[in-house]
Amino acid sequence: MIFSLNLKGMLNVADEIKVDVAVLGGGPGGYVAALKASQLGGKVALVEGEGLGGVCTHKGCIPTKALLHSASLIERIKSSGLHGVSVSDFSVDFPRTMDRVQRIVNRLAKGVEYLLNKSGVEVVRGIGRIRKHGLLEVASTDKGGEVEINWRRLIIATGSHPFKVPVPGIDGENVITSDDIFKLRDLPQSVVIIGGGAVGVEFATIMSGLGCEVSLVEMMPRLIPSEDNSAGNLLKKELEKRGVRVEVGARVTRVSEGDGLKNVEATKGSEKLSLEGEVVLCASGRAPNTENIGLEILRVELTDKGFIKVDERMETNIPGVYAVGDVVGRYLFAHTAMQEGLIAAENAMGGQASMDYRVVPRCVYSQPEAAFIGISEDSAREGGYEIGVAEFPLIANGRALTLDSTTGMAKLIYGKRFGELLGAVIVAPEASELIHEIALAMRLEATVEDLAGMIHAHPTLSEILREAALRASGKPLHG
Amino acid sequence: MIFSLNLKGMLNVADEIKVDVAVLGGGPGGYVAALKASQLGGKVALVEGEGLGGVCTHKGCIPTKALLHSASLIERIKSSGLHGVSVSDFSVDFPRTMDRVQRIVNRLAKGVEYLLNKSGVEVVRGIGRIRKHGLLEVASTDKGGEVEINWRRLIIATGSHPFKVPVPGIDGENVITSDDIFKLRDLPQSVVIIGGGAVGVEFATIMSGLGCEVSLVEMMPRLIPSEDNSAGNLLKKELEKRGVRVEVGARVTRVSEGDGLKNVEATKGSEKLSLEGEVVLCASGRAPNTENIGLEILRVELTDKGFIKVDERMETNIPGVYAVGDVVGRYLFAHTAMQEGLIAAENAMGGQASMDYRVVPRCVYSQPEAAFIGISEDSAREGGYEIGVAEFPLIANGRALTLDSTTGMAKLIYGKRFGELLGAVIVAPEASELIHEIALAMRLEATVEDLAGMIHAHPTLSEILREAALRASGKPLHG
Repeated sequence: MIFSLNLKGMLNVADEIKVDVAVLGGGPGGYVAALKASQLGGKVALVEGEGLGGVCTHKGCIPTKALLHSASLIERIKSSGLHGVSVSDFSVDFPRTMDRVQRIVNRLAKGVEYLLNKSGVEVVRGIGRIRKHGLLEVASTDKGGEVEINWRRLIIATGSHPFKVPVPGIDGENVITSDDIFKLRDLPQSVVIIGGGAVGVEFATIMSGLGCEVSLVEMMPRLIPSEDNSAGNLLKKELEKRGVRVEVGARVTRVSEGDGLKNVEATKGSEKLSLEGEVVLCASGRAPNTENIGLEILRVELTDKGFIKVDERMETNIPGVYAVGDVVGRYLFAHTAMQEGLIAAENAMGGQASMDYRVVPRCVYSQPEAAFIGISEDSAREGGYEIGVAEFPLIANGRALTLDSTTGMAKLIYGKRFGELLGAVIVAPEASELIHEIALAMRLEATVEDLAGMIHAHPTLSEILREAALRASGKPLHG
Repeated sequence: MIFSLNLKGMLNVADEIKVDVAVLGGGPGGYVAALKASQLGGKVALVEGEGLGGVCTHKGCIPTKALLHSASLIERIKSSGLHGVSVSDFSVDFPRTMDRVQRIVNRLAKGVEYLLNKSGVEVVRGIGRIRKHGLLEVASTDKGGEVEINWRRLIIATGSHPFKVPVPGIDGENVITSDDIFKLRDLPQSVVIIGGGAVGVEFATIMSGLGCEVSLVEMMPRLIPSEDNSAGNLLKKELEKRGVRVEVGARVTRVSEGDGLKNVEATKGSEKLSLEGEVVLCASGRAPNTENIGLEILRVELTDKGFIKVDERMETNIPGVYAVGDVVGRYLFAHTAMQEGLIAAENAMGGQASMDYRVVPRCVYSQPEAAFIGISEDSAREGGYEIGVAEFPLIANGRALTLDSTTGMAKLIYGKRFGELLGAVIVAPEASELIHEIALAMRLEATVEDLAGMIHAHPTLSEILREAALRASGKPLHG
């Protein structure tokens, strides 16, 4: 006590907290871990220096989906003639568009705060740093000074930040990342997006929908290169239909200044490309936030790629110290972060829980959406599985026709011998929802026969899953 | 042969066909039965007097969903200010709106025709009638005369027609049914809808969305009265927000002529109501098409309510004669008709298949959509089940917020002891898709724990299912 009083005097210690579990970072992994640990009876403190909900709520999942909905409105207006609707004129007040996005973000962030408060989690605002085993110090932004958190267990959920492809000019003006885009108050007239993964494709969809001229450059030979090839090719065509210039197999070499515009230079085979835009959006991946949090003090082990190394219980090499979410880098999804948060919290509270990554839906919020689960056709074959593959095209689906959205398909990958589902690709409106039927099927170790036998409501998009399964079972119905 | 030649001479027999399976009616039940029987190696003829695809394709599922998409466009335009989008003016050219609907209908009808042709099913256009066991006669509309179909097995799929509530004035002018509505070339300024079941609510959604002034009157104390009460009350509020006048617990007594308008008179308790509209749309149920098809010749047995009586193999009391779809009246859904068609075809071709009605999704294409499966809370309690009920509100879902659509919920009904799923209600955008996750869970006899443990993609609407399941397992997460 005397010691701590002294310390308070010396370091301007504004507060001292003693908890069972300290959580460093208030994104989806962190706040869910905090909620869960608290529900399990722990005294919990959560440290967050920026907005509660993390990148997901403030710069990722949520604002992108909110803006996508505005983009889809504009597109629907543009194609309203198809419906016999004439719109004489329309204009977009972009700051108001962004105000709506911000309102939604604020509401969800408030929701997270409400849940944490209700659960009795102490939220400490500020930048946290490990000082030694059992002690976290926080440069508090609301209490004016240091807050010391004494913990028995620590859950690190510091997340990640956008990684800029290291080429000359990448740090220049108007080269932004997803971190900056929601600060824009004016819609750029044109943008070059570097990176054709989920984030790049999503922003290409949003920005082109909003009326921005978009070019996209991807190093690998197709979009969404980590996933089944059928989707990437479809999405490329769809983006091109929307007027997006898509260059795949093109390596960015330099970002230079053009005629008042940014110039992204790239090589594609022997060809030299130049893509111009008012703004360059770097969507070339993310890197873990492992710096300046004191990991070295505890000697927390990292992976080759610099992520925090954890076991299936989400525990690091230091007993009682866990890590979850982007900083462990298994998947960079909010939903895996949340699940990891649940697992870490259970273990931190003395439970025995393991993370199960077998069934993780992976979604791209393009138009149409794309969703993936399990293994791809290629990786199944490479892995030596004896597989069957069955596809059903969206164009044969009634609901898709009524939605004027017929580009897409469902593809099922299954074991040849027993018909067990190994993976799926869905490209369709609402693919991010549809994928859960397959997720559950895989989780319950169902076969294509199980799916094929199930009545699906008509007319729904989900019918394509049954149709693909009927094909897989050798009983194709609609084609 | 001589006999048949004679007959041809006598009756102007244009053609004579000998098949394994004759199918009477080309709606979802009939055409699927024909496809399946043909795939199983049968020689098959299908008789249809109107459009292939039946009511579903021409007057039901498909054109309503197509028109709903136009209605949703108009609504999005009206609420575009929310997105910072100003639309100075817009107008609706209703005939063009309906042209799009018709194009979609035609395309799907062509699709059905293509599938039937590809499968080698002989399509006979005309009105078919049983003459005796083994013989169907068709007043052919394209061959000019009688076509005789000699069959070994018969599948009756004659469907149903709208049933008008029998009150004075119901047969007057401008009292229409869903059969007539797609013939309209002008959007009425106002409409009174009689019936607040799925069809009535769907048309109220569509017509109000298109800009028509809508009143709806339902005899029972809530909308969608056959389903869980939580949905009907929500949908009533949503329709009222859209400006629809909704009167529940009101019995229509008379349709009279008002001041150039139709006047639907009703009593609600001791109150007398009068609802005015340019048009009255009767959505008060459907009756089976059992007349003038020669059922009495075979002595095919009917139920008390006049539907054709079948066993679980879809066989009537006459061996070798099957019936499927609306005419058997178990459910009046296209998707049950299709499944019944599959079952009947298998059995007609010598197989042994039974219809399983345990897992049938039931959807209402309102805004938001509503979808149901299994048993309702009330009927579970009435049935003496010891149940648990867990609900999660849509307003706590991130994706719903980004879609500006936060009215709704997921409700799970499950066995108290083992947690097995017994039923579900979803009111949410895309509820008709989301319900399939629960359908599969029920089909595979999964528990709320199974659902609760499954990673759901973020941000998706489907997350409400996991959240409800987490509540059911006593581990609520987001609230």
